[in-house]
Amino acid sequence: MTEKRQEKRQELRTRLIEAARDRIAAGGLRGLRARDVTADAGCALGGLYTAFADLNELVIHVNSDTLRRLGEAVAEASAGIEEPGTKLKAMALAYLAFARTHNALWLALFDTTMLADVEIPQWHKDDQAGLIDGIARTLAAISPDMDEDARQRRARTLFAAVHGIVSISLEKRFIGLSGDHLEGELESFVDLVARAPTPLNR
Amino acid sequence: MTEKRQEKRQELRTRLIEAARDRIAAGGLRGLRARDVTADAGCALGGLYTAFADLNELVIHVNSDTLRRLGEAVAEASAGIEEPGTKLKAMALAYLAFARTHNALWLALFDTTMLADVEIPQWHKDDQAGLIDGIARTLAAISPDMDEDARQRRARTLFAAVHGIVSISLEKRFIGLSGDHLEGELESFVDLVARAPTPLNR
Repeated sequence: MTEKRQEKRQELRTRLIEAARDRIAAGGLRGLRARDVTADAGCALGGLYTAFADLNELVIHVNSDTLRRLGEAVAEASAGIEEPGTKLKAMALAYLAFARTHNALWLALFDTTMLADVEIPQWHKDDQAGLIDGIARTLAAISPDMDEDARQRRARTLFAAVHGIVSISLEKRFIGLSGDHLEGELESFVDLVARAPTPLNR
Repeated sequence: MTEKRQEKRQELRTRLIEAARDRIAAGGLRGLRARDVTADAGCALGGLYTAFADLNELVIHVNSDTLRRLGEAVAEASAGIEEPGTKLKAMALAYLAFARTHNALWLALFDTTMLADVEIPQWHKDDQAGLIDGIARTLAAISPDMDEDARQRRARTLFAAVHGIVSISLEKRFIGLSGDHLEGELESFVDLVARAPTPLNR
């Protein structure tokens, strides 16, 4: 591929990701159609398949873009906080705020319907890992003696726990916490985790 | 309705719940069809609408049945354990074991696709609450001074956290813990929660 063609393809990819992101943000993954996305991006239906393998791959690119924005929101909310427990709390609250504000895009990150049978590519898993790394770095300040593997595992556990609290409560399919109590419970929960140094260290 | 008719309707409901449960256990909610369920239950398609409002209502009844079995499994695994931290750990591990063994039925409890637009009835929410009550009773032994409302909230938080760890790891859509580490992380996590009595009490 010549440099010029490469550049045009990259530009088409960017336009398609933006169009798909806007569609998902407005209406979720349900009912997302290649026809609508390409029309919004101002290209022919076939353009999608020049730029990506298929609509699923495009959605995974939108998800990586969402992870980047989520990572930025979490980093921004916790920047400059030294005390690791307070920092973890700020990160958890930023996660909740993002899930509320960008609900459809956030839900798409965990989709088990449209992407049910799609193998998640390694580059997207690497983007997921980026989010976990920020937690692991903060845990390092709480438990400096923990080895790197254990810390990575513990960071995944904490992420999944916070995600569970947020998602059960926001999805409203299973009894969770009402909106009034969600922030408070999340704070108490992270406090509890951050202030129990010994078992964190095992 | 005469007593005899009432009895026949109840018997039909039980048969339909069993047939739907077997179908969901084998193939999940995706592709569940009223036609197949009624054929398995040995009744006409119309029989479904004599017994239930629609297929969605039948699925919610299967979910209540699953909650009952899950509650039994958790109660059985933790029966006779006095120390509340150890008891909570046994409950969490039983939850994980149930999610693994009855994966499709467990996933149906949290379905956001087929039941996306269905209002969850109060009687099913009461069955969900039953599961949380067992956790709240165990928390009472750890934090006897906590008032009942706060304890209910904390029990929901802990349930959601454990659920998040289990579901992110089993669903494999987002990086979680590998099978080898899942039990160990879940145990450390519950330990950490159970052994931090002060913040539990706030």
